[in-house]
Amino acid sequence: MEPNDSSNNNNMHSSHCSLDISMEVHKVVPPPHRSSLQKLKNRLKETFFPDDPLRQFKGQSSKQKWILGAQYVFPVLQWGPNYSLKLFKADLVSGLTIASLAIPQGISYAKLANLPPIVGLYSSFVPPLVYAVLGSSRDLAVGPVSIASLILGSMLSQEVSPTKDPILFLQLAFTATFFAGFFQASLGLLRLGFIIDFLSKATLIGFMAGAAIIVSLQQLKSLLGITHFTKQMGLVPVLNSVFHTRNEWSWQTVLMGFFFLVVLLLARHLSMRKPKLFWVSAGAPLACVILSTIFVFALNAQRHGISVIGKLHEGLNPPSWNMLHFHGSHLGLSVKTGLVTGIISLTEGIAVGRTFAALKDYRVDGNKEMIAIGVMNIVGSSTSCYVTTGAFSRSAVNHNAGAKTAVSNIVMSVTVMVTLLFLMPLFQYTPNVVLGAIIVTAVVGLIDVSAACSIWKIDKFDFVVMLCAFLGVIFISVQEGLAIAVGISIFKILLQITRPRTVVLGNIPGTDIYRNLHHYKDAMTVPGFLILCIEAPINFANTMYLSERILRWIEEYENENNAKKHLSIRYVILELSAVSAIDTTGVSLFTDLRKAIEKKGIELVLVNPLGEVMEKLQRADKTSDLMRPDNLYLTVGEAVASLSSSMKCWSSSTFVEGTHGADGQN
Amino acid sequence: MEPNDSSNNNNMHSSHCSLDISMEVHKVVPPPHRSSLQKLKNRLKETFFPDDPLRQFKGQSSKQKWILGAQYVFPVLQWGPNYSLKLFKADLVSGLTIASLAIPQGISYAKLANLPPIVGLYSSFVPPLVYAVLGSSRDLAVGPVSIASLILGSMLSQEVSPTKDPILFLQLAFTATFFAGFFQASLGLLRLGFIIDFLSKATLIGFMAGAAIIVSLQQLKSLLGITHFTKQMGLVPVLNSVFHTRNEWSWQTVLMGFFFLVVLLLARHLSMRKPKLFWVSAGAPLACVILSTIFVFALNAQRHGISVIGKLHEGLNPPSWNMLHFHGSHLGLSVKTGLVTGIISLTEGIAVGRTFAALKDYRVDGNKEMIAIGVMNIVGSSTSCYVTTGAFSRSAVNHNAGAKTAVSNIVMSVTVMVTLLFLMPLFQYTPNVVLGAIIVTAVVGLIDVSAACSIWKIDKFDFVVMLCAFLGVIFISVQEGLAIAVGISIFKILLQITRPRTVVLGNIPGTDIYRNLHHYKDAMTVPGFLILCIEAPINFANTMYLSERILRWIEEYENENNAKKHLSIRYVILELSAVSAIDTTGVSLFTDLRKAIEKKGIELVLVNPLGEVMEKLQRADKTSDLMRPDNLYLTVGEAVASLSSSMKCWSSSTFVEGTHGADGQN
Repeated sequence: MEPNDSSNNNNMHSSHCSLDISMEVHKVVPPPHRSSLQKLKNRLKETFFPDDPLRQFKGQSSKQKWILGAQYVFPVLQWGPNYSLKLFKADLVSGLTIASLAIPQGISYAKLANLPPIVGLYSSFVPPLVYAVLGSSRDLAVGPVSIASLILGSMLSQEVSPTKDPILFLQLAFTATFFAGFFQASLGLLRLGFIIDFLSKATLIGFMAGAAIIVSLQQLKSLLGITHFTKQMGLVPVLNSVFHTRNEWSWQTVLMGFFFLVVLLLARHLSMRKPKLFWVSAGAPLACVILSTIFVFALNAQRHGISVIGKLHEGLNPPSWNMLHFHGSHLGLSVKTGLVTGIISLTEGIAVGRTFAALKDYRVDGNKEMIAIGVMNIVGSSTSCYVTTGAFSRSAVNHNAGAKTAVSNIVMSVTVMVTLLFLMPLFQYTPNVVLGAIIVTAVVGLIDVSAACSIWKIDKFDFVVMLCAFLGVIFISVQEGLAIAVGISIFKILLQITRPRTVVLGNIPGTDIYRNLHHYKDAMTVPGFLILCIEAPINFANTMYLSERILRWIEEYENENNAKKHLSIRYVILELSAVSAIDTTGVSLFTDLRKAIEKKGIELVLVNPLGEVMEKLQRADKTSDLMRPDNLYLTVGEAVASLSSSMKCWSSSTFVEGTHGADGQN
Repeated sequence: MEPNDSSNNNNMHSSHCSLDISMEVHKVVPPPHRSSLQKLKNRLKETFFPDDPLRQFKGQSSKQKWILGAQYVFPVLQWGPNYSLKLFKADLVSGLTIASLAIPQGISYAKLANLPPIVGLYSSFVPPLVYAVLGSSRDLAVGPVSIASLILGSMLSQEVSPTKDPILFLQLAFTATFFAGFFQASLGLLRLGFIIDFLSKATLIGFMAGAAIIVSLQQLKSLLGITHFTKQMGLVPVLNSVFHTRNEWSWQTVLMGFFFLVVLLLARHLSMRKPKLFWVSAGAPLACVILSTIFVFALNAQRHGISVIGKLHEGLNPPSWNMLHFHGSHLGLSVKTGLVTGIISLTEGIAVGRTFAALKDYRVDGNKEMIAIGVMNIVGSSTSCYVTTGAFSRSAVNHNAGAKTAVSNIVMSVTVMVTLLFLMPLFQYTPNVVLGAIIVTAVVGLIDVSAACSIWKIDKFDFVVMLCAFLGVIFISVQEGLAIAVGISIFKILLQITRPRTVVLGNIPGTDIYRNLHHYKDAMTVPGFLILCIEAPINFANTMYLSERILRWIEEYENENNAKKHLSIRYVILELSAVSAIDTTGVSLFTDLRKAIEKKGIELVLVNPLGEVMEKLQRADKTSDLMRPDNLYLTVGEAVASLSSSMKCWSSSTFVEGTHGADGQN
């Protein structure tokens, strides 16, 4: 074969030449040998145990290992023994503060989920106790949250009506809670916590804003005093329904709603401007509830079109394990609802835990937290609680109020217990409109306009993802909007892989540094060389593209050279430092490319293939000699220096014989 | 804030120091400004027009542009005018050779698709003519292929029985062919051809082998002479059915089948050993058909349990556009079948075209070929043809027989036409058993054991993908096996993105080169520095992992240093040459990481952020000063040199004040 002759020829010359030119060239060595089993083990460890959780057990006595193990499972054993009165004082204050927030929010969110209001209080009693024992965050305030409540309510009411069939609805809600907990704990146990990372920041911001709007729209029912409200969630049907029921609007309710909404929003605004006044916004909801209840009771306002919560049972959580249904026609719905609410509430809980851990400089183990939240929901599902997690707004209040440990959750839980046991009759006259105002105030904070602006500034594509999540949620449905946004995010990653960047490098004069010609204006091309950098792993999805793109680079470059009457290309150097992985399809890129360009009298040179890539190329390359030392260099600088000296040497010795030698036709 | 004080401090020292130490440090410059619109345009062009198809039109006269345009759409205009008698001689020989293969294969594959045998001949008449005008490959031999036939037959018979309702079945087959052509042409027109790249080499090898076994198993019906054969496709039900119908086996058929199978396999073997004898395997099927037909006719063997094809209509393709159904209950099935067979046959056609183009050193435009194959199937669907594409085995024969242009397809087509018009009665006594033997011989070549071995050697994970495709096809179903394998391939890519490699770099003594410490044994760590290389784009799916992994590297490294009483880390250098892209979540990695390590008195230094990364970091970085010149270097070597000189300078001037200065507590 002619091309081979030429390269052998060339080879001889270069080896002959290297004798007279002394130059240090560093060899590319194959990585140290590891068996497939070792590699697999390593790979699995990096995938599932990147945090190396057993690290602390190494080199400990077996008694110590038991203690560490117990502390690992029950973080309460870690901080419990050192607990002091000083810490308790701080926790007491913060616990009472979040309880004053948790009670009205619990009732409101339960209504958002189409559940009896008391379930919201039940859910603020048991889960915080479980979390206090298992959880590792010191700031998380546990309880029901708006978005999970919304999703639970809306998904379940697609199949079962909460008004016509309240018992079945409640059963499904508890079953869905069980599955949510089950999925959450499984993700943690199977160390699959990274699944929630697929909800990118942009997706979450869009999703939260959309959900906040959907939640607020639902509150128009209680804020306007409408009795025949639509069952649908989307922006269009809700607004439609609101305008078609204008005759149902009650001016007394609207007035009251407007008043409390303004009070609550002002309180929120004040606390945001001056973080030390956090107790204003923390106490405002309870104050509004008390005020409005007294008002209704005093004026008998429930007779004038203002709807009230009505009688609530006194007493603690009744057991509900007999209400869990693991069979029947609605099982699929419970599982699906559990999965979606579980993952959404997990995302919120973990993000909240991490945010405050970073502020106080301790670390929260994601997978461990998932187990804690999961167990909390499984226990909750058999004690009349629905899906709970760490809520952002409440945790922020907890943090600002000076919470030191999870004891603040216990204080909150005890306060709720007291309420459940003795104070329930007081809520009989609480108007629904004030609950609506509380929810709207709570979710307004989920709309983060400044974050949206900064996303627009940094990355337009992320902004599109955000917009899709937002529009999907408000116009299609909460879960589909989320799915669309996640789908687009993953599609973007795949697209990046399918169309990796290839960049032409040039030499920065006076150095050994080679950088992107289009980025560094002072970088210069080296005559006779085309230096390309491939900036992605090479795999089945991009091999064809890369091969065609590289051939096009060569063609364009040669046309340009011909136009300028420059030296034609002798070597194509592929800088592989950024190629972190390769597969069997990818390996064929190099052999095919080499064959294709050899016909043009061009040689292929590889620079710095990384360990894995090097290994696979070597194994694939028993016959073709892609991995010959003179085709393989450690840096672009060395490759260019070594090859251009051999090129000079070669041309000086062959120009006498005739230039056609270059094409291997001698 | 204390940590900031420390870094400012340090900053001052370094700037003071740099005055007395003269060292050339190259600045990292932001890439040249481009507007968002320009970037979007560029991105879209790289995604959909990586081959820049309009390149050749640039700078041409408008008449020339018309000619080039017409040639672009109809490649026949390119080679037609230069066609000569010499070329025709070569094409005639190869055309007759592939016709002798196409006629028996056409009949056999139609039976595999549960269609009347004559449809296979119709499909070898019209599509080759269309392809000869539109196609750009010179070697592709067009006609029905085994795998697409199998999938079409099996998918359609899930809903409609080909024996009970043959007319409806035929209508659905033509409709599915129309949709296959429609999807193929659309992929080409929308420049989405890269979708077929998602079928990796490993997936295809596993899939082909599985399909070959399924196809061969189906032939047991005719090879053993079974009359009551199962309708299912899987390995288990077919073998089950074969053993339960032992009493139906006819020894005459088995004997005849065995004989012809051995003859055909021997012919195939001979041609593979000596490529010059390609005509042996090319002619063998037709020879077997003729021989067996004469044998049956002479001995009246059809009366002795040997089933024959029976009467076939003479005449050319009847029109079938009135048989296309775009409504009704089976529309979904037609669309789905069209999509799957369309993509599978496209993959085969494009791969075959590219393989032979590479051998003869011309280029085939993937998207253009897709349009050609798509139009061919759309035309086919209204002229009684089912799905066709370029078949590998037949194209190889075409190539070996010396085909020069697409005229060999026209010759084949004319030969089939003559057969359809005059020779159909001759096939009346052709036994089905010989068709079974022809199919088995044809698909045996799809089982590529040596490729499977080389995949095992190069990449174990790809082998798993291959195995999944193979086992999925033979145990579950053809389309699900394929879907599973594609899913796993994509999951692998996502996993690589979610868990990117971070590598510790060390200095290769005596150079400026920094390479992986675990790969290059002579690389040395630099005291006071931790140099990490991130080998993937940073995005939402891996930001959390990277942040935790980098913090763990620091912790491990510090523990190690403490044990050895080395200098503690002062700088963490992140080498970003391999980070080709970043998103908004990824940007927060650097700011968060910087905050986290500043508390330990460590500074974060970035090396060589690429254009896009640089831009986004700058835009995100209005407040924090991540992009300060002394935190940003062009190469690791320069960063280490510059920082260690400032470190020495700093330590010599601060050790007097007290080492605690390092922690910012002075």
